[in-house]
Amino acid sequence: MKKVDLNSDLGEGFGSFKIGMDQEILKVVTSANIACGWHAGDPVIMEKTVALSKKKGVAVGAHPGYFDLMGFGRRNMNVTPEEVKTYIKYQVGALKAFTDSEGLKLQHVKPHGAMYNMAAKDYSLALGIAQGIKEVDNKLILLGLAGSELIRAGKEVGLTVASEVFADRAYTKDGKLVPRTAPGAVIHDKEIAINRVLRMVQEGKVQSIEGEDIDIDAHSICVHGDNPEALEFVVAIKNILEKEGIEVTSLAQVVNTYE
Amino acid sequence: MKKVDLNSDLGEGFGSFKIGMDQEILKVVTSANIACGWHAGDPVIMEKTVALSKKKGVAVGAHPGYFDLMGFGRRNMNVTPEEVKTYIKYQVGALKAFTDSEGLKLQHVKPHGAMYNMAAKDYSLALGIAQGIKEVDNKLILLGLAGSELIRAGKEVGLTVASEVFADRAYTKDGKLVPRTAPGAVIHDKEIAINRVLRMVQEGKVQSIEGEDIDIDAHSICVHGDNPEALEFVVAIKNILEKEGIEVTSLAQVVNTYE
Amino acid sequence: MKKVDLNSDLGEGFGSFKIGMDQEILKVVTSANIACGWHAGDPVIMEKTVALSKKKGVAVGAHPGYFDLMGFGRRNMNVTPEEVKTYIKYQVGALKAFTDSEGLKLQHVKPHGAMYNMAAKDYSLALGIAQGIKEVDNKLILLGLAGSELIRAGKEVGLTVASEVFADRAYTKDGKLVPRTAPGAVIHDKEIAINRVLRMVQEGKVQSIEGEDIDIDAHSICVHGDNPEALEFVVAIKNILEKEGIEVTSLAQVVNTYE
Amino acid sequence: MKKVDLNSDLGEGFGSFKIGMDQEILKVVTSANIACGWHAGDPVIMEKTVALSKKKGVAVGAHPGYFDLMGFGRRNMNVTPEEVKTYIKYQVGALKAFTDSEGLKLQHVKPHGAMYNMAAKDYSLALGIAQGIKEVDNKLILLGLAGSELIRAGKEVGLTVASEVFADRAYTKDGKLVPRTAPGAVIHDKEIAINRVLRMVQEGKVQSIEGEDIDIDAHSICVHGDNPEALEFVVAIKNILEKEGIEVTSLAQVVNTYE
Repeated sequence: MKKVDLNSDLGEGFGSFKIGMDQEILKVVTSANIACGWHAGDPVIMEKTVALSKKKGVAVGAHPGYFDLMGFGRRNMNVTPEEVKTYIKYQVGALKAFTDSEGLKLQHVKPHGAMYNMAAKDYSLALGIAQGIKEVDNKLILLGLAGSELIRAGKEVGLTVASEVFADRAYTKDGKLVPRTAPGAVIHDKEIAINRVLRMVQEGKVQSIEGEDIDIDAHSICVHGDNPEALEFVVAIKNILEKEGIEVTSLAQVVNTYE
Repeated sequence: MKKVDLNSDLGEGFGSFKIGMDQEILKVVTSANIACGWHAGDPVIMEKTVALSKKKGVAVGAHPGYFDLMGFGRRNMNVTPEEVKTYIKYQVGALKAFTDSEGLKLQHVKPHGAMYNMAAKDYSLALGIAQGIKEVDNKLILLGLAGSELIRAGKEVGLTVASEVFADRAYTKDGKLVPRTAPGAVIHDKEIAINRVLRMVQEGKVQSIEGEDIDIDAHSICVHGDNPEALEFVVAIKNILEKEGIEVTSLAQVVNTYE
Repeated sequence: MKKVDLNSDLGEGFGSFKIGMDQEILKVVTSANIACGWHAGDPVIMEKTVALSKKKGVAVGAHPGYFDLMGFGRRNMNVTPEEVKTYIKYQVGALKAFTDSEGLKLQHVKPHGAMYNMAAKDYSLALGIAQGIKEVDNKLILLGLAGSELIRAGKEVGLTVASEVFADRAYTKDGKLVPRTAPGAVIHDKEIAINRVLRMVQEGKVQSIEGEDIDIDAHSICVHGDNPEALEFVVAIKNILEKEGIEVTSLAQVVNTYE
Repeated sequence: MKKVDLNSDLGEGFGSFKIGMDQEILKVVTSANIACGWHAGDPVIMEKTVALSKKKGVAVGAHPGYFDLMGFGRRNMNVTPEEVKTYIKYQVGALKAFTDSEGLKLQHVKPHGAMYNMAAKDYSLALGIAQGIKEVDNKLILLGLAGSELIRAGKEVGLTVASEVFADRAYTKDGKLVPRTAPGAVIHDKEIAINRVLRMVQEGKVQSIEGEDIDIDAHSICVHGDNPEALEFVVAIKNILEKEGIEVTSLAQVVNTYE
């Protein structure tokens, strides 16, 4: 039986600033990426979001980012691999305090925003990230973009890696995401998007923007719960996956970490 | 045989900002309180300072403070007990990532600056701090001002507590520190200061500013390595303690945690 | 003809974090207090909010607060009068860059949150704030709580001061706000609230919580546009004020600064 | 008579963190670039540094940088021209509050670190910076790397521009700085460095790393006072310049702004 995880970014408020529909999205997803206080999130929110994820039975991961609250961690920053290694350790350790105190196992680490995107292409940065995760806890799963340098670096240091795919994004024939600025980068037709996801999970294949089929690992699908429409789309994806006999379950179950 | 710990605040730089003489003070002290990135310290510095402490055989503790880098965590902030609990968990967890990755046991937690001083007098704040420490790891030692509400709160939640004394500060007859602004608060004569420390460790007594002897627990002496003169004073204290047959050793050894 | 100003806090988002209904509230109020990047606001938001205020013909003031984004500037911080003086200068100067570049005159300064509340009671802090404002531009109006130390300090340094009242708050017989935690502090009945405002503006009097009438200066009424209901209440206040023949106009017009 | 300015970065501490030898370097330089609180500096330090510069008769400029205190503003950040424009306005406005209150004219703006280096090569970023300066005060001088896009952008928007040169850096034949990582980038021989400076000021020429002479504008020489040796070098440069009959004076005098 095929398995796949649905992951979403959570706990992205800061102090009095609220963002996202965490309560609702936690009813649907199987893994939560929780912000660690640098690009979003604060300790009070982290504690609440971990507790809420536990209550809903959703596996918890850390979602570390750059120290750029003003840019929500979405702006490239020129940090060294050695720096990023320590930034990962700091943020993952901070979140782990909250999962430890809830008696939860921290399942995975998924870098956020610009850190994720830069590491997808920059192997030495990716290696810094992977090394940081390993130094905190070598049982943590590294969740990164399918086919990226982050996946390669995770394997290199001996971590369990999981590949993430996007329902609404086009891929090039060498397995990279088509940049958002390029025509055709985003797939707006929801039915097409859902069918692509289904094929990625069932066959491990997707049609590239050039027209050829390519191989793709789809351990987890990245979904968003920013607004009611996005939420509805996630429910639709989940329903079709289950109808097709695919088990939607946590990342750890998908990559067989604990088997 | 009497035992006492010498503790000092370390890793207090931030980015390009350097502070303190960490290399030198680590040759003398037995416990290091390492800043956790909020009032001072950053991940790169935390990693280096943990590694350096390990190399020098100095036990490591977390030194969490308020999120007030501009005020170095020395300004009172009106945070709730629930907030401070999560702030402690966040910072202790972050530092623990670095001790875990070095294979070191995190020994203790000592709140910094205004957090330390406020919690010495405010039991509900102290309880928030103690609870936060316990939720991360109930084997951690809480290091606080001798006779303070922090010690009382630590005992209340079931933590091992350790009492800190100051060589150069006067005490009131009810065991509190004389406020720095009051006359006689600071003892400038080094010989008198050292003799007071000696008596606190050997007899558990100190003469209050009112003239009466009071009981005081002296598990650890707070020392500073900010400048060559301060450093020299620490060496002098240590030499006299050892000459008098007192074992200068880590906090964990002093409070028999692992026995 | 009686005049009164309606002021509201604006530009309180930060980066990707949105807050408030600025577009809507700017249709109703006559003075905008714009956050200056410390407790809320960032340069992009400041520029937009100043431009929007200009477009709507709303007078602009600076709304400086403590450097505590996590607490939205609502937590007391123990800063010195000398520090607060420089914090005011920094933030007012920063906002002034945006009004200058729009060819707008910066009208007033209203301290935010904990800074406002602390300065209402602490004369030396209030003096630091007033001095800071004066040093940047001695034509700026200081907007503070009616009857507070902030008003007293503003007068002392020679600033034009304006007194702010709250529609929904009870006052003690010595003209202070009843603390929010005390019974009867908040007036929930909207009709009563509006009638109190009307009387404050028309007669300069309000009934204290003890039952006696007291004198009160009401140059400006603080209103909020956080949600549709709040917004509706502001419109209701404005309509009644105008129906009663009171001119609702900018603070500068009310205090006759430019006459 | 030839004129040249000596500029140095000042006020680069933050809170309790001290950096630089401001008192000493202010005895030698003619223009001060004062940090504005983002990559370094805080309001208390800004006020002190402005006052000290005034006392020493040194002209004051703003030294805005990226909001990256942890990286001292030295790490490239991917901000948009529109964002950087507002960042400039914010920081320049903040510093202007302190010069205004001292009755000093703010003389110039020199972007710091990564912002300076990125804008030297990226015309659209440079244009955002120049536009921001102009919107605050179109009489401000933009101080940038000789031959850079920043100078080009400043001219484009109609600002007075001033070109900065480095005594100890090699230039390529197209007038760019040789990257620090390339061999020969830094000139360690102090006599050679001083002679190069002299020629840049007297003849407007410098020998490129490829061996050919190139034209270079040298309105201001960037110098550092981080340590006693650096300070001594600055004094040596100044002495030789003056001995050779060159007037060492403020940037405004050099570029004839006020004539």
